[in-house]
Amino acid sequence: MYLTQFLHRVVQQYPDRPLTICGDRIRTGRQVADRVARLAGAFQGIGVEAGDRVGILALNSDRYHEWFYASWWTGAIAHPVNTRWSPAEMAYALNDSGTGVLLVDDAFAPLAAELRERAPGVHTLVYCGDGTAPDGMLDYEQLVTGFEPVPDVRRGGDTVGLLLYTGGTTGTPKGVMLTHRGLLTGMMSSALYSSSARPGGVSLVTAPLFHFGAVAGWQAQNLVGGTLVFLPTFTPDGVLRAVRDHGVTSVTLVPVMVQMVCNHPDFASYDLSGVDRVIYGGAGSPESLLRQAMKAFPNARFTQGFGQTESGVLTALTHEEHVAGGELIRSGGRTTPAVEIAVVDPEDRPLPVGEVGEIVTRGDHVMAGYWGKPELTAETMRGGWLHTGDGGYLDENGYLFVVDRLKDMIITGGENVYSAEVENALSAHPSVASCAVIGVPDEHWGERVHAVIVLRPGTTATAEELRAHTKTLIAGYKAPRTVEFVDEMPLSPVGKILKRELRDARKG
Amino acid sequence: MYLTQFLHRVVQQYPDRPLTICGDRIRTGRQVADRVARLAGAFQGIGVEAGDRVGILALNSDRYHEWFYASWWTGAIAHPVNTRWSPAEMAYALNDSGTGVLLVDDAFAPLAAELRERAPGVHTLVYCGDGTAPDGMLDYEQLVTGFEPVPDVRRGGDTVGLLLYTGGTTGTPKGVMLTHRGLLTGMMSSALYSSSARPGGVSLVTAPLFHFGAVAGWQAQNLVGGTLVFLPTFTPDGVLRAVRDHGVTSVTLVPVMVQMVCNHPDFASYDLSGVDRVIYGGAGSPESLLRQAMKAFPNARFTQGFGQTESGVLTALTHEEHVAGGELIRSGGRTTPAVEIAVVDPEDRPLPVGEVGEIVTRGDHVMAGYWGKPELTAETMRGGWLHTGDGGYLDENGYLFVVDRLKDMIITGGENVYSAEVENALSAHPSVASCAVIGVPDEHWGERVHAVIVLRPGTTATAEELRAHTKTLIAGYKAPRTVEFVDEMPLSPVGKILKRELRDARKG
Repeated sequence: MYLTQFLHRVVQQYPDRPLTICGDRIRTGRQVADRVARLAGAFQGIGVEAGDRVGILALNSDRYHEWFYASWWTGAIAHPVNTRWSPAEMAYALNDSGTGVLLVDDAFAPLAAELRERAPGVHTLVYCGDGTAPDGMLDYEQLVTGFEPVPDVRRGGDTVGLLLYTGGTTGTPKGVMLTHRGLLTGMMSSALYSSSARPGGVSLVTAPLFHFGAVAGWQAQNLVGGTLVFLPTFTPDGVLRAVRDHGVTSVTLVPVMVQMVCNHPDFASYDLSGVDRVIYGGAGSPESLLRQAMKAFPNARFTQGFGQTESGVLTALTHEEHVAGGELIRSGGRTTPAVEIAVVDPEDRPLPVGEVGEIVTRGDHVMAGYWGKPELTAETMRGGWLHTGDGGYLDENGYLFVVDRLKDMIITGGENVYSAEVENALSAHPSVASCAVIGVPDEHWGERVHAVIVLRPGTTATAEELRAHTKTLIAGYKAPRTVEFVDEMPLSPVGKILKRELRDARKG
Repeated sequence: MYLTQFLHRVVQQYPDRPLTICGDRIRTGRQVADRVARLAGAFQGIGVEAGDRVGILALNSDRYHEWFYASWWTGAIAHPVNTRWSPAEMAYALNDSGTGVLLVDDAFAPLAAELRERAPGVHTLVYCGDGTAPDGMLDYEQLVTGFEPVPDVRRGGDTVGLLLYTGGTTGTPKGVMLTHRGLLTGMMSSALYSSSARPGGVSLVTAPLFHFGAVAGWQAQNLVGGTLVFLPTFTPDGVLRAVRDHGVTSVTLVPVMVQMVCNHPDFASYDLSGVDRVIYGGAGSPESLLRQAMKAFPNARFTQGFGQTESGVLTALTHEEHVAGGELIRSGGRTTPAVEIAVVDPEDRPLPVGEVGEIVTRGDHVMAGYWGKPELTAETMRGGWLHTGDGGYLDENGYLFVVDRLKDMIITGGENVYSAEVENALSAHPSVASCAVIGVPDEHWGERVHAVIVLRPGTTATAEELRAHTKTLIAGYKAPRTVEFVDEMPLSPVGKILKRELRDARKG
């Protein structure tokens, strides 16, 4: 198995159907395959060989899609650079990986000079924006038209195809090496288990493609065959227009994105009934938010995936489990077919059901290792299991509960209060657009239930009103003792609310 | 990846739900896993080592299911023997493979003495029937209760897990070696593409488990997790009762089986609305039969798979393509995601769209080779492609048309008549239960369109009446010139009408 296989399959099966849509540009599978073969020719022309790392620093686009395939077409390793990082972090990843060719678009061309200085190994910059290539850069479109198509080297199996750097915010970034077979096995397994893609679907790619979750959603559609619609970056407006203009059937989002779409002022004027798949990452989303989203996308199957870059998707919560609701919504779901997980103690002994330990996994879906870090790789993969570093437990039906999310428990006056439960209650109030419930230090109670609230535009609500509302739904001791209104939430690169940041800023 | 993984997953996720149902015996996943671990202990106790071949000669049952898993649990190769073969052919497969341990049930215990004589390498016979073990045989249930459970050796990846003999009717039988990874990749790919299994489904195993198609249907449900209902052998009555009694949601059949179910006298009194998946093998089924079946299973997604033992499922026709109907119904569908196919000329050069040549395929789904036949393997796998020996062509949208089925074309008076078209028309007559249209030698016309008909019980129809009916639907020259009524059709082991046999018996 090799990743370009799916482009060949498109040419065999849907050659003249639109494959990529990006703004006004619509290209068929045949056109994309020809452009990829030419770009691969250009890569070879500028010295790229099998195993080399080819980077991109850009917002999502159809050219991003072509760049992935052209890298694989030459047998190279695709290295998408995290666009939210600082130039120092970007340079670290470029230097560490030995990336020689780097594509930049209009948003990042201004960083080129600085990156070139900090990462002298980058010998060729390719401008893949919509204007004129700046001095010292090759022009993407000129490469595509100027080079002849070359044959696909069809490298695959256990060779590395993708290098994704993680951990930029905590410690040194690490390059996660993912193989062709590993990526394909993991993605087939999760798509099979959760029916998260269907042949002929039109998939919206709006989460950033340097993130595993976005790659997984994009590849799931490529696997079964369909059309990809690229948005440079997420906006609620962009999602709504794309659904209307391009007949989008499948979206991969994080919960807060779903919420932002639902809260868009013109939301009601868009018809979302054609969307049949909503895939999101982020276990432990408030159930009320999910209910709202399921109402907004009335014909969509909802799938939640949980995993990490090192392993891809490990577990999934299926649509039927969403419909059932309740306690399971707080879980990450269950393993997909090809995936094995266990929860182990610090001596790597498997723990019984219900006991918290480290989540470990093994199988073809697991990374080949960390780039240039054999010792860290051996330590992480000890005993043949990938140690995720995430804590969690399994219930008696194999549902995985991740403790980082359970840490979202507040102990107030000796009582345990789960943030999710309070957030559920608050979200049910018509004026609440989004909310986060955290524990803050309190002299009297030890911890105090504290709510941070973003109100819906044009609505009002007082702290007391929200407290009273909450008490109609859950026990009084769980109601927030203090309520704080903010204009916006601090969000992670993929749009999750950064509770840690909220907590840190409110540490007495 | 390894095949026993799915039994461990069941224990993690659905330990106390019924996993196997066979007659009155219902066992949970936990019980089955315990029995498998004990049977594996017994296998080890009687000398089975990793890589050994363990055989079974039996009708389908829950013990057949346990035998598969126990073989894999010890790292052995499962060798299911074709029950339709002659003792000489069975002995050939046992000797060729070096099978040492053989399980037999009540249906095949009477053959034991003969097989033991013809296949002296079989050192241990295990009786897995419902009565008392005959002299000289070990008793399955005593092994399960008498041995302690052993740990799973978890052998998998590229090691061989399954040995299926094919080609008994033409030339020497060959043992097809299928690996753990190969089987799992192919089955995930086809199940993903065609949504042929869903988590929690109840799957009926009625096609014989020595046949790849039956193994694929059985494993698809194991992959995603669910319940298996075993029928010792196919009967229309058995299918109807199993659906009623056990809430079957998924059936794997061949078209004639579907037809026999629909023609059952009590058919109308059974509620089949709970069946949501019908998977069948056999491209080129008459469309009218499919329409009848789709009416009989009103809520079922229909999937057709095409492939061979050496490769597993190569292409699939999805439910949406069934609904669309027309010309595509005659095709085998399109490749599933992990599968590559091409059509090549005798010099292995790829042929353009529409040209007939040999169907070749490559990828992880392909067999490891023929047992003990390295030269035949090398010849079959030349250039890295498995040569299927089947002729066919691809259309401009990647649909595979298999020529063996197109050979079902009759040239009469210089006109081409496709049998399927005539069969479609005949099947639409209310008295026709099943039909086969063939060309027979004719002095005047070269070939003559000849229909072989089985009438529905309690109905009548004359040859002239059927000719007249046909002419209301298709051109006059396509109507059968001669019509022959028979009590039953000659069927292949998996229930397909043997047209070759019909033709040979009518060769002037």
